[in-house]
Amino acid sequence: MSDRFERGLAAIDRLAADHAAIFDPVADIAPDLSRYVAEFAFGDLYTRPGLEPPHRQLLTIAALAALGDVRPQLKFHVAGALNLGVEPATIVETLLHCLAYVGFPRTVNAVGAVREVFAARGLLPVGDQRPTA
Amino acid sequence: MSDRFERGLAAIDRLAADHAAIFDPVADIAPDLSRYVAEFAFGDLYTRPGLEPPHRQLLTIAALAALGDVRPQLKFHVAGALNLGVEPATIVETLLHCLAYVGFPRTVNAVGAVREVFAARGLLPVGDQRPTA
Amino acid sequence: MSDRFERGLAAIDRLAADHAAIFDPVADIAPDLSRYVAEFAFGDLYTRPGLEPPHRQLLTIAALAALGDVRPQLKFHVAGALNLGVEPATIVETLLHCLAYVGFPRTVNAVGAVREVFAARGLLPVGDQRPTA
Amino acid sequence: MSDRFERGLAAIDRLAADHAAIFDPVADIAPDLSRYVAEFAFGDLYTRPGLEPPHRQLLTIAALAALGDVRPQLKFHVAGALNLGVEPATIVETLLHCLAYVGFPRTVNAVGAVREVFAARGLLPVGDQRPTA
Amino acid sequence: MSDRFERGLAAIDRLAADHAAIFDPVADIAPDLSRYVAEFAFGDLYTRPGLEPPHRQLLTIAALAALGDVRPQLKFHVAGALNLGVEPATIVETLLHCLAYVGFPRTVNAVGAVREVFAARGLLPVGDQRPTA
Amino acid sequence: MSDRFERGLAAIDRLAADHAAIFDPVADIAPDLSRYVAEFAFGDLYTRPGLEPPHRQLLTIAALAALGDVRPQLKFHVAGALNLGVEPATIVETLLHCLAYVGFPRTVNAVGAVREVFAARGLLPVGDQRPTA
Repeated sequence: MSDRFERGLAAIDRLAADHAAIFDPVADIAPDLSRYVAEFAFGDLYTRPGLEPPHRQLLTIAALAALGDVRPQLKFHVAGALNLGVEPATIVETLLHCLAYVGFPRTVNAVGAVREVFAARGLLPVGDQRPTA
Repeated sequence: MSDRFERGLAAIDRLAADHAAIFDPVADIAPDLSRYVAEFAFGDLYTRPGLEPPHRQLLTIAALAALGDVRPQLKFHVAGALNLGVEPATIVETLLHCLAYVGFPRTVNAVGAVREVFAARGLLPVGDQRPTA
Repeated sequence: MSDRFERGLAAIDRLAADHAAIFDPVADIAPDLSRYVAEFAFGDLYTRPGLEPPHRQLLTIAALAALGDVRPQLKFHVAGALNLGVEPATIVETLLHCLAYVGFPRTVNAVGAVREVFAARGLLPVGDQRPTA
Repeated sequence: MSDRFERGLAAIDRLAADHAAIFDPVADIAPDLSRYVAEFAFGDLYTRPGLEPPHRQLLTIAALAALGDVRPQLKFHVAGALNLGVEPATIVETLLHCLAYVGFPRTVNAVGAVREVFAARGLLPVGDQRPTA
Repeated sequence: MSDRFERGLAAIDRLAADHAAIFDPVADIAPDLSRYVAEFAFGDLYTRPGLEPPHRQLLTIAALAALGDVRPQLKFHVAGALNLGVEPATIVETLLHCLAYVGFPRTVNAVGAVREVFAARGLLPVGDQRPTA
Repeated sequence: MSDRFERGLAAIDRLAADHAAIFDPVADIAPDLSRYVAEFAFGDLYTRPGLEPPHRQLLTIAALAALGDVRPQLKFHVAGALNLGVEPATIVETLLHCLAYVGFPRTVNAVGAVREVFAARGLLPVGDQRPTA
């Protein structure tokens, strides 16, 4: 294993309870894909200095919401954000902030995906100190 | 409730048997999102003069088909179009018209979503007066 | 020339002052592409019964705005809509209607493309009978 | 039936065990859509000279992976590639090649779709002669 | 002018030297569009509590990079980030973080757009304390 | 320089007359981005066994055409395909094959980008042995 791989694996482990969710589904078909996830996406990119991990997670969530058709990855990274200590309301706020760029349909679907993660962890309802207009 | 909210709610109610489908799924996580749906998407935009509601629905269906990954919203607005009196064949025709721009895969998937709405209402087969080549 | 081709060419000619804008740019590299435009996009799809040509144009504009990166085609079809007698304000209204789905950035860019077509025809400012809030 | 239709149907039959997967789902709602699939997508485009059918399949897989939200079509064409004799590892390799353009989330989801097709045919694990870094 | 409009205008003014860049281009064709930008995108969304303005800008940049075809908006919001005191290197870091999701082509083009903003302000070269491998 | 970097650089040099087109535009803003292009996109992915370089180029072209808003990258890779000995007609054929998935507008724009590369090399008109219907 390269240094990049080990560094990426450590980053995944800080994010997820278990990195099996990334490695197992492709182990018998494209093991190199999860190797690249560890080496490049996490080992090269995620561990760069210059941005705090919680902010990185929110940037990821913004980008995934804009892509629109990547629900499993969105759920993985929302769980990762929670594991890093990001407040549920901050994750929701991130999606509401992006609403103007992403549009309503993809935002509604992204919120639905986030809700599944929150529900599984007993985090609903999300405390909301926001004005109700 | 603002005037915009009430105006939007009335627009939703003309479209859907029940606006709960929009409000309930986000009530415990992002109530502001459904408020924006009512105030902005429906209260500001949908109720503008200059286009008839049935035409607005077909424009929505064209845009959602092009986005491609927003099946729940497509089904909601197809049901809305039927509720406004749009003929099933006109909805199908809208998707066929957009085929050249949207491509076959997304169009086939959009037709599949529309078919689910039609099937639930007993509207199949769609009467087709079109030439068969 | 097939019937489909001639039927499509006639449809293009009703839409555009001149179909050279479609045929010339690809004549020395992919003439079959413009043949398919004529035969399939216009001969098969555009000339189907069930939707009026002006409405077809607005559906096209909605789909192209949602795609987002097809400015030349958007301008071609906006010009086509004007040639079919669609009011400038109705074209703008179509883009504003789709704003909730398409998002602000792509809508702003689509309006900018439409503005170029209107400016070249001396159609600015667009008469606006809409409420200003 | 036109020549284009018959030519397209023959192309589909070389690709799929059964063309019912294309025709049946839209038979009672948009039969013209499957007619266009046969006539245009397969009769006009797929049967053109200049590219071998296995390469055409891989190009299709690359394009569908980039579109990202067209899982049923991706699975259909992966099955088609296998039916044409393409090696499972070559299909995986195609997705890995496109990773830099398509991004990780859509690639991971595409590999997941491909895996379902391979699993149903008992093709797992995919023999992998590739270096492990 | 509504409170929402004034609140949005103030938010735009904190971001941009001059809000004319938003209002002027659509003034003679779709003034309601810039009103919605001010009222909704900035007045409703941007001014919500729960995220600091510099972080909001970086989320916007992530979402716009993922959309891919919205260069003018990306440049506007990069300039806005600088005006809010975000370090140039942090903006670049945001795009590099999103590379795994957005892919190389759109990231390279986004960096090119950012570079134009930086060049116009004499901010090149970007100080880079990052490891060089 | 790592082995991955050198291997990637060699791959770029086989593709392009000069790798400066990749490195220079980001040298003063995001040098790590071009490092990742060399190390990951080319060093890791492009040099994998299992697909011939000319086929890799055509897969790239298919994916980029589907992404739709990445004209500079499309032109770079079309030039690369020519440098690898791919026939101009095969490149055009690749885009026509993807037309059913990508749709007409993005295909027409992709062909326009390809045409610019061909024109700069004096490769027009493209010899076309294809049937004209």
